[in-house]
Amino acid sequence: MFRIDKLTVVGVGLIGGSVALAARRRGVAARVTGVDRQSGASERALQRGLIDEAAADLPSGVAGADVVVFCTPVDHIAAGALAAAPHCRPGALLTDAGSTKAAILRELDGRLPPGVSFVGAHPLAGSEKQGTEHARADLFEGQLVVLTPSSPPDDTALSRARGFWEGLGSRVEVMGAEEHDRALALTSHLPHLVAAALAGVVPVELLGLTASGFRDTTRLASGGPALWAAIFLSNRAAVLTALERLDDQLERFRQVLAADDREQLEALLREGKQVRDGLSR
Amino acid sequence: MFRIDKLTVVGVGLIGGSVALAARRRGVAARVTGVDRQSGASERALQRGLIDEAAADLPSGVAGADVVVFCTPVDHIAAGALAAAPHCRPGALLTDAGSTKAAILRELDGRLPPGVSFVGAHPLAGSEKQGTEHARADLFEGQLVVLTPSSPPDDTALSRARGFWEGLGSRVEVMGAEEHDRALALTSHLPHLVAAALAGVVPVELLGLTASGFRDTTRLASGGPALWAAIFLSNRAAVLTALERLDDQLERFRQVLAADDREQLEALLREGKQVRDGLSR
Repeated sequence: MFRIDKLTVVGVGLIGGSVALAARRRGVAARVTGVDRQSGASERALQRGLIDEAAADLPSGVAGADVVVFCTPVDHIAAGALAAAPHCRPGALLTDAGSTKAAILRELDGRLPPGVSFVGAHPLAGSEKQGTEHARADLFEGQLVVLTPSSPPDDTALSRARGFWEGLGSRVEVMGAEEHDRALALTSHLPHLVAAALAGVVPVELLGLTASGFRDTTRLASGGPALWAAIFLSNRAAVLTALERLDDQLERFRQVLAADDREQLEALLREGKQVRDGLSR
Repeated sequence: MFRIDKLTVVGVGLIGGSVALAARRRGVAARVTGVDRQSGASERALQRGLIDEAAADLPSGVAGADVVVFCTPVDHIAAGALAAAPHCRPGALLTDAGSTKAAILRELDGRLPPGVSFVGAHPLAGSEKQGTEHARADLFEGQLVVLTPSSPPDDTALSRARGFWEGLGSRVEVMGAEEHDRALALTSHLPHLVAAALAGVVPVELLGLTASGFRDTTRLASGGPALWAAIFLSNRAAVLTALERLDDQLERFRQVLAADDREQLEALLREGKQVRDGLSR
């Protein structure tokens, strides 16, 4: 069983709050400290019983921590880790919950003080809902967390990161950061972009003529624009490649529609169905 | 209250089975007859208690019916109505549950015998699940049904169609068939096409790296390829126009991503969020 004395969560929104709550409920950490740049956020997390103490600032928050988890927007994680590291005790493990990984690892490469390690993590869990008030102790239960070690890999740090995330109830898979980002461009970033684009072309006065299909297909469009802009930009090349693949597929649909070609249209629909039905198995 | 003696449902799948069940449970029809070209389908519907009798063929099924509802694929509705009409009693109302309306009205225009009326209907309810076994008595409850009268409109038939669909628990809105089809191209057909295209570009080996976002965005891709090919082709021009609008919006995303323009990227994401958030109000 993975047990530590002090866990510090930086950014106590939906993800950070859920990390804190899961760590307390499952006994992973004896005490959980929260830090948040947003005024009042860690106090609210304290009131809600997500954390044991709210730190005034990052240096005091991470002091003495065994594990520090950065649950801030992707474009703040590397800077946060660099700011925190000098105040961390030797042997401290830094990890995160960012949706993209390669840019963060590049930014940290060779810049952490000796004794402080960073192992990238991406929990494939979340919600279009943001904020401390949506935190849930079971958010990671049975969900996949992808770990992306730095290179050369630090086996001790990787094994501790695995222990930590498994301790929160998740399944862990280890993958290269670039490979992770290319895959997630297709499985997560592209769906988000498409949902936003689709919602963007429907005039609000037609919303009364939508049903559950539109609701589901566009659900991701409700996500935070700033958060997602940061995710897209931190994985720009892979997202552009994914978008190109979608463009090609949409162009195939356009051509068979224009040609009134029922057989090929059905074939394209079957392609999508085959992939999607694979999820329900 | 709308009360008839005999209702005939042609096509007893998810929609037809739900029409039958709702009509029986809510006392809209004293008896419900089912007809289905698929061998054994109406017998299964009878066994499940969805209908009171299974007719051997369309002529005997529609004989004496006050209302006949065609719940077959969109490309079979007009032909079914034309085949049924000569066997209908004078004053019979024909209606349907097809997702597109203009092509059907065009095909029927001036071809129905005197005394038999057709009022197009589109219940904005359904599921990616097909088949009698998914029929539900409450499928239409509180859901919108768009009625598209023929022109010139037959006020008696329209009022009976309204009574019938409201009798099943739905809300009714009356709209021109072309206007309906243009709107639904954006609010229903485009989401389906996009879901299918998106699912089609994700390699099955990456399905393990998907989360609820991908699941929701692609849910529609599980729909029946033949059914949806027929819907797209019966509304081809409007679907192509909708697809063009989406292409333009995706191109805007591509450009701001390529330009690394965070501000404009956030603006595009906000556009989508604003529309989508309008649904939750």
